Amino acid sequence: MLSKSRLKYIKSLQLKKYRKEEQCFVVEGARSVSELFQSDFQITIVAATPLFIEQHRGNLARKGMEVIPVSERELTATGTLQSNDSALAIAKMKPNTPPVFQPGDFALVLDDIRDPGNLGTIIRTADWFGIRHIIASNETADLYNPKTIRATMGSFLRVKLFYTTLTEYLQSAGMIYGAFLKGTNIHELGFANGGFIVIGNESNGISTDLAAMVHERVMIPGYGGAESLNAGVATAIILDNLRRSKK
Amino acid sequence: MLSKSRLKYIKSLQLKKYRKEEQCFVVEGARSVSELFQSDFQITIVAATPLFIEQHRGNLARKGMEVIPVSERELTATGTLQSNDSALAIAKMKPNTPPVFQPGDFALVLDDIRDPGNLGTIIRTADWFGIRHIIASNETADLYNPKTIRATMGSFLRVKLFYTTLTEYLQSAGMIYGAFLKGTNIHELGFANGGFIVIGNESNGISTDLAAMVHERVMIPGYGGAESLNAGVATAIILDNLRRSKK
Repeated sequence: MLSKSRLKYIKSLQLKKYRKEEQCFVVEGARSVSELFQSDFQITIVAATPLFIEQHRGNLARKGMEVIPVSERELTATGTLQSNDSALAIAKMKPNTPPVFQPGDFALVLDDIRDPGNLGTIIRTADWFGIRHIIASNETADLYNPKTIRATMGSFLRVKLFYTTLTEYLQSAGMIYGAFLKGTNIHELGFANGGFIVIGNESNGISTDLAAMVHERVMIPGYGGAESLNAGVATAIILDNLRRSKK
Repeated sequence: MLSKSRLKYIKSLQLKKYRKEEQCFVVEGARSVSELFQSDFQITIVAATPLFIEQHRGNLARKGMEVIPVSERELTATGTLQSNDSALAIAKMKPNTPPVFQPGDFALVLDDIRDPGNLGTIIRTADWFGIRHIIASNETADLYNPKTIRATMGSFLRVKLFYTTLTEYLQSAGMIYGAFLKGTNIHELGFANGGFIVIGNESNGISTDLAAMVHERVMIPGYGGAESLNAGVATAIILDNLRRSKK
């Protein structure tokens, strides 16, 4: 059973303020917690059902990890999932360090993606297409928000985010692509050998300062009445076209 | 100002039970309400700021429409948006009637898309790619849920949804495509001249019964660690490839 203080601590991590103070975040559900065991994230607490504990005995025997047996009802009440019949873990955040690229790497650049669900979907999509690095503006949603972590479906373990001031970071960058409503048709674009792909804010698109730094504006051809696409959807279509053009 | 009974009525429409009873739903925000005026949806109530009322005088003079001046604070308190500084409208649902296709039409088929946000994003994406009809299983999220309507960004006005039992509906269907983790590479697929594209549930994919009816399994090539893609993202990539192959 969770003590009152442990319950309070875990719940506090739903707020960015306390995550920042504690440098810790919550991972929920059997699949995500299992994947967390396989990663290099440092885990401090696992609250899990007796069955989950039995099934993951080896992974739970690590040094410095507190294992707390709980009921399904306690788990659900403690976390943010609609129901959780397995486990919840607390892990240490990673330091915010700039990525190290390999030749030919592409990275996503997120210009104020505000919605944690959108951010999580973008991370999951980046992972699917083998994009390992995302550069995010300081105003982008928090990677460690429970909604972001959930929407990544475990992909936060493989894709690295770096928060920074984009206009400074991209000053010396190579090729910069940006998604706009007008530009080169993505179906006809020959992508360079590596570069950055800027995705704009959900409501306002790419900010003026950053738009001025984009070398190639790309657009996804539309055929209907919608004025724009969801940011995660636009990212997915661009990355699919990128991989297709590189075959 | 909204009377207590009007406020209660509008708030009740956030629940499916009352929407069904009243056959009415809520549309929020300046852009969506303005677009609603241009559609053939019957509007019963508009609650709006004096400024919005001034700007839309012509549209608000229609017969049978009750116009209620309200403050921004009232609007936000009445609706589901984080803030609303313009308008909120109540409109009549449309009857659930099967689509009438034109030769060469493609339609989406949604097999239990449970998340209203996902459904809304799919409708918006369909609209972008000129898909006018969606066939949804009866277990798919409600089109008239405020979260769905919001995520469509106005596209619910152009794309038509028909809820039905999919296995019965598709019995006499022509070409049926389905999104799977294994199948024909979407980059190499030659789409037929019209057909249905089945998108599976967020957790379980396409159900067994429906999977047996699919003529062509298609897959989106992956290059990374993610095990799957978000349903809206998968839809978007398939539709982009469809349009690309039809040029």
